[in-house]
Amino acid sequence: MVELSTIPQEVLDIAEGIRSMRIRGAGKIARSAAEALRIAAEKYQGEREPSVFRRYMAKVADTLIETRPTAVSLPNAVMYVMQAVFQQTSDFDELKKGVIDAANRFIEDSLNAVKRIAEFGSKRIRENSVILTHCHSTAAVSVITEAYRQGRVVKVYSTETRPFYQGRITTRQLLENGVPVVQIPDSAVRYIMHEVDQVVIGADTITSNGAVVNKIGTSQVALAAHEARVRVFVAAETYKFSPMTVIGELVPIEFRDPTEVVPQEWLEKHKNVRVLNPSFDVTPPEYVDAIITEVGVIPPQAAIMILTERLGWAIDKIKQAGLTKLRFEDLVED
Amino acid sequence: MVELSTIPQEVLDIAEGIRSMRIRGAGKIARSAAEALRIAAEKYQGEREPSVFRRYMAKVADTLIETRPTAVSLPNAVMYVMQAVFQQTSDFDELKKGVIDAANRFIEDSLNAVKRIAEFGSKRIRENSVILTHCHSTAAVSVITEAYRQGRVVKVYSTETRPFYQGRITTRQLLENGVPVVQIPDSAVRYIMHEVDQVVIGADTITSNGAVVNKIGTSQVALAAHEARVRVFVAAETYKFSPMTVIGELVPIEFRDPTEVVPQEWLEKHKNVRVLNPSFDVTPPEYVDAIITEVGVIPPQAAIMILTERLGWAIDKIKQAGLTKLRFEDLVED
Amino acid sequence: MVELSTIPQEVLDIAEGIRSMRIRGAGKIARSAAEALRIAAEKYQGEREPSVFRRYMAKVADTLIETRPTAVSLPNAVMYVMQAVFQQTSDFDELKKGVIDAANRFIEDSLNAVKRIAEFGSKRIRENSVILTHCHSTAAVSVITEAYRQGRVVKVYSTETRPFYQGRITTRQLLENGVPVVQIPDSAVRYIMHEVDQVVIGADTITSNGAVVNKIGTSQVALAAHEARVRVFVAAETYKFSPMTVIGELVPIEFRDPTEVVPQEWLEKHKNVRVLNPSFDVTPPEYVDAIITEVGVIPPQAAIMILTERLGWAIDKIKQAGLTKLRFEDLVED
Amino acid sequence: MVELSTIPQEVLDIAEGIRSMRIRGAGKIARSAAEALRIAAEKYQGEREPSVFRRYMAKVADTLIETRPTAVSLPNAVMYVMQAVFQQTSDFDELKKGVIDAANRFIEDSLNAVKRIAEFGSKRIRENSVILTHCHSTAAVSVITEAYRQGRVVKVYSTETRPFYQGRITTRQLLENGVPVVQIPDSAVRYIMHEVDQVVIGADTITSNGAVVNKIGTSQVALAAHEARVRVFVAAETYKFSPMTVIGELVPIEFRDPTEVVPQEWLEKHKNVRVLNPSFDVTPPEYVDAIITEVGVIPPQAAIMILTERLGWAIDKIKQAGLTKLRFEDLVED
Amino acid sequence: MVELSTIPQEVLDIAEGIRSMRIRGAGKIARSAAEALRIAAEKYQGEREPSVFRRYMAKVADTLIETRPTAVSLPNAVMYVMQAVFQQTSDFDELKKGVIDAANRFIEDSLNAVKRIAEFGSKRIRENSVILTHCHSTAAVSVITEAYRQGRVVKVYSTETRPFYQGRITTRQLLENGVPVVQIPDSAVRYIMHEVDQVVIGADTITSNGAVVNKIGTSQVALAAHEARVRVFVAAETYKFSPMTVIGELVPIEFRDPTEVVPQEWLEKHKNVRVLNPSFDVTPPEYVDAIITEVGVIPPQAAIMILTERLGWAIDKIKQAGLTKLRFEDLVED
Amino acid sequence: MVELSTIPQEVLDIAEGIRSMRIRGAGKIARSAAEALRIAAEKYQGEREPSVFRRYMAKVADTLIETRPTAVSLPNAVMYVMQAVFQQTSDFDELKKGVIDAANRFIEDSLNAVKRIAEFGSKRIRENSVILTHCHSTAAVSVITEAYRQGRVVKVYSTETRPFYQGRITTRQLLENGVPVVQIPDSAVRYIMHEVDQVVIGADTITSNGAVVNKIGTSQVALAAHEARVRVFVAAETYKFSPMTVIGELVPIEFRDPTEVVPQEWLEKHKNVRVLNPSFDVTPPEYVDAIITEVGVIPPQAAIMILTERLGWAIDKIKQAGLTKLRFEDLVED
Repeated sequence: MVELSTIPQEVLDIAEGIRSMRIRGAGKIARSAAEALRIAAEKYQGEREPSVFRRYMAKVADTLIETRPTAVSLPNAVMYVMQAVFQQTSDFDELKKGVIDAANRFIEDSLNAVKRIAEFGSKRIRENSVILTHCHSTAAVSVITEAYRQGRVVKVYSTETRPFYQGRITTRQLLENGVPVVQIPDSAVRYIMHEVDQVVIGADTITSNGAVVNKIGTSQVALAAHEARVRVFVAAETYKFSPMTVIGELVPIEFRDPTEVVPQEWLEKHKNVRVLNPSFDVTPPEYVDAIITEVGVIPPQAAIMILTERLGWAIDKIKQAGLTKLRFEDLVED
Repeated sequence: MVELSTIPQEVLDIAEGIRSMRIRGAGKIARSAAEALRIAAEKYQGEREPSVFRRYMAKVADTLIETRPTAVSLPNAVMYVMQAVFQQTSDFDELKKGVIDAANRFIEDSLNAVKRIAEFGSKRIRENSVILTHCHSTAAVSVITEAYRQGRVVKVYSTETRPFYQGRITTRQLLENGVPVVQIPDSAVRYIMHEVDQVVIGADTITSNGAVVNKIGTSQVALAAHEARVRVFVAAETYKFSPMTVIGELVPIEFRDPTEVVPQEWLEKHKNVRVLNPSFDVTPPEYVDAIITEVGVIPPQAAIMILTERLGWAIDKIKQAGLTKLRFEDLVED
Repeated sequence: MVELSTIPQEVLDIAEGIRSMRIRGAGKIARSAAEALRIAAEKYQGEREPSVFRRYMAKVADTLIETRPTAVSLPNAVMYVMQAVFQQTSDFDELKKGVIDAANRFIEDSLNAVKRIAEFGSKRIRENSVILTHCHSTAAVSVITEAYRQGRVVKVYSTETRPFYQGRITTRQLLENGVPVVQIPDSAVRYIMHEVDQVVIGADTITSNGAVVNKIGTSQVALAAHEARVRVFVAAETYKFSPMTVIGELVPIEFRDPTEVVPQEWLEKHKNVRVLNPSFDVTPPEYVDAIITEVGVIPPQAAIMILTERLGWAIDKIKQAGLTKLRFEDLVED
Repeated sequence: MVELSTIPQEVLDIAEGIRSMRIRGAGKIARSAAEALRIAAEKYQGEREPSVFRRYMAKVADTLIETRPTAVSLPNAVMYVMQAVFQQTSDFDELKKGVIDAANRFIEDSLNAVKRIAEFGSKRIRENSVILTHCHSTAAVSVITEAYRQGRVVKVYSTETRPFYQGRITTRQLLENGVPVVQIPDSAVRYIMHEVDQVVIGADTITSNGAVVNKIGTSQVALAAHEARVRVFVAAETYKFSPMTVIGELVPIEFRDPTEVVPQEWLEKHKNVRVLNPSFDVTPPEYVDAIITEVGVIPPQAAIMILTERLGWAIDKIKQAGLTKLRFEDLVED
Repeated sequence: MVELSTIPQEVLDIAEGIRSMRIRGAGKIARSAAEALRIAAEKYQGEREPSVFRRYMAKVADTLIETRPTAVSLPNAVMYVMQAVFQQTSDFDELKKGVIDAANRFIEDSLNAVKRIAEFGSKRIRENSVILTHCHSTAAVSVITEAYRQGRVVKVYSTETRPFYQGRITTRQLLENGVPVVQIPDSAVRYIMHEVDQVVIGADTITSNGAVVNKIGTSQVALAAHEARVRVFVAAETYKFSPMTVIGELVPIEFRDPTEVVPQEWLEKHKNVRVLNPSFDVTPPEYVDAIITEVGVIPPQAAIMILTERLGWAIDKIKQAGLTKLRFEDLVED
Repeated sequence: MVELSTIPQEVLDIAEGIRSMRIRGAGKIARSAAEALRIAAEKYQGEREPSVFRRYMAKVADTLIETRPTAVSLPNAVMYVMQAVFQQTSDFDELKKGVIDAANRFIEDSLNAVKRIAEFGSKRIRENSVILTHCHSTAAVSVITEAYRQGRVVKVYSTETRPFYQGRITTRQLLENGVPVVQIPDSAVRYIMHEVDQVVIGADTITSNGAVVNKIGTSQVALAAHEARVRVFVAAETYKFSPMTVIGELVPIEFRDPTEVVPQEWLEKHKNVRVLNPSFDVTPPEYVDAIITEVGVIPPQAAIMILTERLGWAIDKIKQAGLTKLRFEDLVED
């Protein structure tokens, strides 16, 4: 067994940063995890023996993954780098270099991802488009802004996205980019849908069968778009594609505090009331026309292809090991 | 021409009360208008000649209608009573009595309507039902409460109904009636729909082709219910059925103040933002399983039948006169 | 109060016949009830005073209705005749004659209904039609047979209609009429639907908002037809239209014996198994293209119009009296 | 039996005009028939006995109806006037006057119908609307033109309506009215549908269950509109509502000459080719949001109500007489 | 040419076992075929020359495939192992070992498949689920049982699955596993669907474009689930995915004996009756939310990806050879 | 930089032939481009240095692609061959041979494609099928003809495909092949759809998310088929799959001359008329059951898999280079 104490402090700090949510956002979490693995490889002091190094890296990987078991980008980053850890080789230096390269490649790809998505996605916005977006997604904002810069967006409807009003962040960012925005309450989505040409939204998680888990209300937006034959584009980095859904894992839906929905005093006054405040909902693939990723425009049903291409080795390992919880230490062969 | 000065002060006071929105709510407006017509008939001092009396009553009716041209229950009440004014008779006393009787009957029916709707509608709620309601409707609350009293409701989901939070009124009233309520944000409707057995909502206006105009967000609720094969019941007094839509009038959708959606300071900070705050939306008849009225349970497409039965004479008169604006004085024949 | 003993024995025998299910079938029940009311009027020995006669007839009506509270054709027949009982008149002889005439008219119309439905419905079957029918309905069999006689039916698919195999009765009757029939299991309906041109089925009950309550499985047939743009015609006598649904009454769904679904020995061997054996299901109006009645071809949403035209007076009386259970004695004014 | 020779020559001339298609168009046919009946009544020289007069008028009516058995407006006009012929009265002069009045009323209503439809329908067109229309309908053109005059139409897409190019007539008339028109091929309907706000079309025949029979291609337009949540309005005079569909009659679909579809030389060159050139198709009621008639805006399912109100007596007579072919002589009682 | 006589008797016995249906069930057939190929390789006595060995193995493969040309798991097993036969190598021992390994791997994977499917699929069942299943599928029963063991299943509806009542096998197995089961007739599926949370079914064959061929009635169940927004999961081992559908082959639908549907005596009594008794129907991919395979949870549209990954080489060979019937001997190059 | 002058004249002639549209049709353009690349490789006179050869070939490739920037088969052919140009090798002869082989393979596959599609697609046509096709597609005609030869086609409906009447070419070719054809106007598609068993159409371009771009009207045909549960098969060579849509490129829709829709004189007479004459429309993947390609039958959502398999290397290169316009010269590393 690898001792936790042998892991460099810098790596443990990143792990703690993710756990305490000091490091937030799918992209940042992913890149920090990749960085932690790179640092761990670089600072490795142990035996120059692949199997020992693998065990050490597995320990680091498991430590990272346990910090936020439900964050989808975390296992994505870790799996991506760990594929290099488990590559077939008896040359320690080659192995180590491969790991560092994989981590760097992941970080670079991740940093470029939003730019690439904006580039690909903006082309799908036609002349004189009225766009609707929901909640706040950097990728979606980038697609819309880029299309606006190219002169094809005339108006954006931005929902307020109760209860947390993340839609106002979207509105503010779009305004700062010069885009004309109309703020609407969530309840007005179907009312204005007939005027909308395209829906552009982000994603929290994409499942292996192409469902899009995103901020509560997204599936209603997509349903109303589908009813009106309005196309729905989901802008999502590939690290949003959940490898654990391949083996059946459900994406957990967090229930947040009632006071986000009603004021504290109201709650106290109406003792018997219950409040349900789910953070996400699930949009089925048939309501999504395309997912715009940094590796291209795909139908939602091709999510499994992306997962297989990017993380196939790791997913296969997990399947072979019969794991339902991702643990790299169990994958190390002696 | 009838002088305005000949109209009793009591009647003018009611007209002013409706105009200044001191008298509010579809039911109260309707009953006050009927009462005003009754008082006008009772206090009539003019010639005991039907045609003169008719011209006087038409003046009163037009005065009332002009106070809130978009309130659907107002022309309903006035038309109902005015049918009696225009009945074929040369006997002044009979005519006057007919008018007073019609006004009294309208008021009584209106007062009984919610109770009758609760009685009819509650029977449609099956054993162990989970109900969803949106916004606040006395009729809908009554249906749900009555079904709960009869032991068939296990839980009610009540949307908050942004931007005005009328859903909290519904929540409070249901809690006071002992009904178990779960408050949800509007964006969570599709998320919880699979658990819902029936949707029960109110209506602002029913059109002649069976569309339901109601608080913004209603059509999204109905769409999500339809997608999940959940039945939608609309609880609506017959005075919500709009006679003017028979001749093509659109139900006006009010746009309310931006500060209901975003705080004033936010608006000032983001000068370029626009806000769209529509008060109502339109639910097409194919998303409504039945309308529960005080005269019975009907499909939405039978709205025109209800209108014809209740107000047919008046609608015919308006059509014959080629009126697009309701004016009874133009209907009086010399 | 009217004494039960004053009711003629012949009438009581009919009531008992309905209760004991010796008199079966919607049409027979309805006609027997009308006949009982006619006999009661003819044999009336009491005071020649309308109000006394009305009270007597109300007692008879209530006695009949209580024999099978859930049979829809029974209140139809009784309400139809009782409209004549409550007509405005002070002339006893006229009143009595009116009642006898109404009963005779109901019986005659009822006897002609199936023939009329066959005549109207058969015209809707186009050249070279492949028909699908479900369960057994005399009206549906008559429509199909008549269309076959006119040379427009090339094949009929008849479902077996588990668990009771009523479809085999349909198959046998159609074969006897010379119609080419293919028997299929219920599970093959969607498989053969693409080949089908029209679905023709009967109805147990039609509700005021146009839903069709019929033998279990009907709604699946209609759904599969709707999916394939195949038209669905429901052949139903007007006494199948339920007046009590106007005031919100649900049509009761009977659960029948488990041994209809699995053999007794199987049940005994598998102690923990439960069996659900519902007799009817509900087809929503959007899956029905037209209802063929003896008074014409209507859309399902016009059911309320038929009810109002035929039984309007009685339904209004019940609504005014605030009755949830049909009781004519409560409607008699002193 | 009435002799044909007793019918005034003027009446026979009108009958011949309809038969030879010199008198064309649903409105003109209907008004000519009503006029013929009025003339027949005015010039009646026979016995001043209601039953004799009725037999004479029935003969005239049957003569008229036989001229074009499939024209829907023809039985409409005749039935409307014949209701007056069969009214209960023993006063010959009153009867004759009633018939003349009914004929005049029909003609006047018919002449006003398009204007009324334009008035009602134009109100349903919202601000800044893009309209799509198919084929040529005077009523639809009038609705669009009126809405344009009121400043609410920005563009009209007009299909060419192969094979006869009636859409070009629509285009020309709209252009003459100053309306901006874009001509498109029929195949481009779905392509431009997302840009369309409302579809406004005419009707050839409306059936008793609310289906709209209109120029081939209409049902495709309505389907594409339905798919995109675009509202479909049908502008149709009430004499387009077919009373014979109440008793099950199918609306006949004419198959026109192959040379309308391909040139004669092409046909000769390709001997084995078959050509199918149907003149009409059937749009189901679920794809129609409202029918705009001169008596008001109704859902398609209320067609049966309009038929019952306008022609109820005649339809009942036909049903009672068990007629499948309309013959008034068989309705005359001795 | 390879002589049949050179094939070991043990292998021929297995072939005969499959032909005579002594070896039944998709899994058993597949594993027996793989085993036969392994034995054939092990017992091979011929020249130690790859091309000669390949020809021998091709003969064995063709012999196996011909035993049941329509069983989908048979070509799956054979193709899987034959990929190893055709691998590029000139080393006979390596080649032979590769074949034996491939056969063993296939057998082991197949044996683990149901367990793996149960593990993956059970995670998709949410808390307090009501499940519906149709017919009998070991994989589906395993998924449900595993989810029940984990405490998330409250009730299972099991259809009887006429005409063969395989649903009763499902019911019995689930009861033996302690799962609460309610047996329903096939016709009650839509009636109870609103209460259902998830549908879990097996598959007979999955086609290259994601359609699910399964026991007759499955597509109705899936349609009714889709109508009610109930998720449908198909539990299917990868050897159910048909490689021959890639080249357009239709999955044959067997028609079984009429006496399964009606008793022999009934048939004799009704000479003219025809009976249609199809064994399978086709559920389109849009009604399936996910397929649970032993290699992961995929959308139905990814079936082609699974086929390509698993059997790509063999499918390519067949395509290149232009074969419509699978014959390995034609693939051997000299 | 490579000089244009170094490119062989034969190659430049082909480029000019494509530009001037002397070389037309997706297949011919593709094969000519592959041939041009082969000739360029064969006639290469420069340094026997891979990097220099690559730069030369890139110049040729770019020259070819620029001739018709919107033709989808052109970049397909070029990318396919260029993958060989960029393969990892330092052996010039091997590289050159690889390129020539790739070009020959592309040409041969392309020539075989239609035959293979006919073979695969025809198997999907069931017994006694009525087929509908739209516009003209060699692949679709081949599928239908092959199925007819095998005795499974009873009738083909062929639309005229306004405005260019390409449907008549289809009709003529099918007639020449002995297939019974019925010519219909485009507007009759929904009218005859209930009689149709399968729709078989071609494609101009397939996008990365599975949409089918084809002749205007195709999406209406597919919509009407979907409404009636009629299967839609698209016959398309893999060079119709657009690699540039992976990076978001929209498929350009050409607007053709107004005089194709209305005669010149009509246009002159009606000065204000506008005409919209789009050449293509987009059919969403949910309306397509399968795409029949020469590499197999796939669901539309697997288009991205085909693209990745065939052209993955080139698409990746373009993505990495951040190109929005395809330029091979920018891909050459020094």
